[in-house]
Amino acid sequence: MTPEEQQRFLDLGREVLAKQPFSVLLGAQLLALKPGYCELMVPMSEEIQQQHGFAHGGVISYLADNALTYAGGTAMRVPVVTSEFKINYLRPAIGERFIARAAAAHVARTQTVARCEVFAVKDGNEKLIAIAQGTIAKLGEAPPVPADAT
Amino acid sequence: MTPEEQQRFLDLGREVLAKQPFSVLLGAQLLALKPGYCELMVPMSEEIQQQHGFAHGGVISYLADNALTYAGGTAMRVPVVTSEFKINYLRPAIGERFIARAAAAHVARTQTVARCEVFAVKDGNEKLIAIAQGTIAKLGEAPPVPADAT
Amino acid sequence: MTPEEQQRFLDLGREVLAKQPFSVLLGAQLLALKPGYCELMVPMSEEIQQQHGFAHGGVISYLADNALTYAGGTAMRVPVVTSEFKINYLRPAIGERFIARAAAAHVARTQTVARCEVFAVKDGNEKLIAIAQGTIAKLGEAPPVPADAT
Amino acid sequence: MTPEEQQRFLDLGREVLAKQPFSVLLGAQLLALKPGYCELMVPMSEEIQQQHGFAHGGVISYLADNALTYAGGTAMRVPVVTSEFKINYLRPAIGERFIARAAAAHVARTQTVARCEVFAVKDGNEKLIAIAQGTIAKLGEAPPVPADAT
Repeated sequence: MTPEEQQRFLDLGREVLAKQPFSVLLGAQLLALKPGYCELMVPMSEEIQQQHGFAHGGVISYLADNALTYAGGTAMRVPVVTSEFKINYLRPAIGERFIARAAAAHVARTQTVARCEVFAVKDGNEKLIAIAQGTIAKLGEAPPVPADAT
Repeated sequence: MTPEEQQRFLDLGREVLAKQPFSVLLGAQLLALKPGYCELMVPMSEEIQQQHGFAHGGVISYLADNALTYAGGTAMRVPVVTSEFKINYLRPAIGERFIARAAAAHVARTQTVARCEVFAVKDGNEKLIAIAQGTIAKLGEAPPVPADAT
Repeated sequence: MTPEEQQRFLDLGREVLAKQPFSVLLGAQLLALKPGYCELMVPMSEEIQQQHGFAHGGVISYLADNALTYAGGTAMRVPVVTSEFKINYLRPAIGERFIARAAAAHVARTQTVARCEVFAVKDGNEKLIAIAQGTIAKLGEAPPVPADAT
Repeated sequence: MTPEEQQRFLDLGREVLAKQPFSVLLGAQLLALKPGYCELMVPMSEEIQQQHGFAHGGVISYLADNALTYAGGTAMRVPVVTSEFKINYLRPAIGERFIARAAAAHVARTQTVARCEVFAVKDGNEKLIAIAQGTIAKLGEAPPVPADAT
């Protein structure tokens, strides 16, 4: 990819993100996007916290889920859905922002298996706060399928 | 439990939920709460959607995560965190509201393993849209630990 | 299904199991088999133990994996592979035999999501020792694919 | 660690493996062992196959499970059990031998979260055939607990 192609790729990814009201609600931003790789960020805010002042686990699982989806979608270059994923929370989500980095581990015709690391950034330092692993499926090849949606 | 005790239990759970800004942001409501069992609901709104008009996967994983936490916390009656969970998405999240039902499968001294089913409700009908399974740990016994938070 | 059809179904399942040298090595037996449902048993023996005299976790994960595969294969009636699964060990695997019961939770065209419970049987009592959840894919629709095998 | 300490560490790990009848049954060998890192190998044999001549998924999940346990046990230097893990199968298990490499991602007081990659080796080439992620708990801190074993 030329730098121009990379920028277009990232711009396209940002357009998709801007069409997800939930991602907009969380203030999510796409920091980097390449075939099979994604960096997604959510800034800390009071709104995304749980009762102890940490970011809610659901925000961290959103980051992992969506970053995995981008990694799979850009690896296969087709519309995709996340079929399943697993996440281990490692440390409390404390920081100024949270960054998920997801990368494809194996790309097949109809699905990609990817891994994700989520970091909390505080005073310029990153701490690993969660790791995830999941399957991203080509839309229509695996549920959730639109045909099933009626 | 007497009906009064059940109501107090549910009220206590709702107080905790009201202290989670992220749960408030999503409009989450606790429908039922018993030791080792929880029903948590999020109503559909444009804000929680992804680009196809379904509820975002991150909302469904929030529901599973938080319902599992409640199931484990009420089973062990101590402050808890969700250590890890796995979710399989089965159908698109289409409906008027989404209900997660989580139940403890095994309760030990320091952790509970629980399962969760998430349903979409549309025109009075429920459809299973996701299943999850995870570990809820007594706070301080497993990460994320406050000692680790500095 | 008539009782005769059920018996034929079970016999067919046992033929497949007999063709798996690893299942034969473990002494695995198919106790029940219906569309979307499977009961698979491994008897305790010194050979399948770890260093503390319990059955090795790998034996319990074999049971879950294979029972999930049968549940998915009989639900879709096509050759299948287990794409992924997750298992939580709940209690040590102590007993005379171990029984996995797997059931389909959602059946789609190309994959089935199923759940599994593994029990230890001792003195006629069953104890839940593990729970699992996974995806079973139609062969050729998802990896591992034979085309990938060269 | 000095080379002598490393060798003693590996020897100790091999002694533990030799006490696991199931690992002996599978011909498992410990190729490398360091604090928080493990390489475990099972050679192909007819006995470990399924009906298509590939190694059975249960063998691959054994490899992942046991390698994760070693990674966690050597990271914490205490007796441990695998609490839970998740595995994605990526390619059929075809080859002369199968190697699992597991590494700790986060080490806490009572548990370690680790990741694992499983490779098939054929004609000197390695192919990634599965990835796993799981929790290894200090024995007695999390189930399966001996107190629960009666």
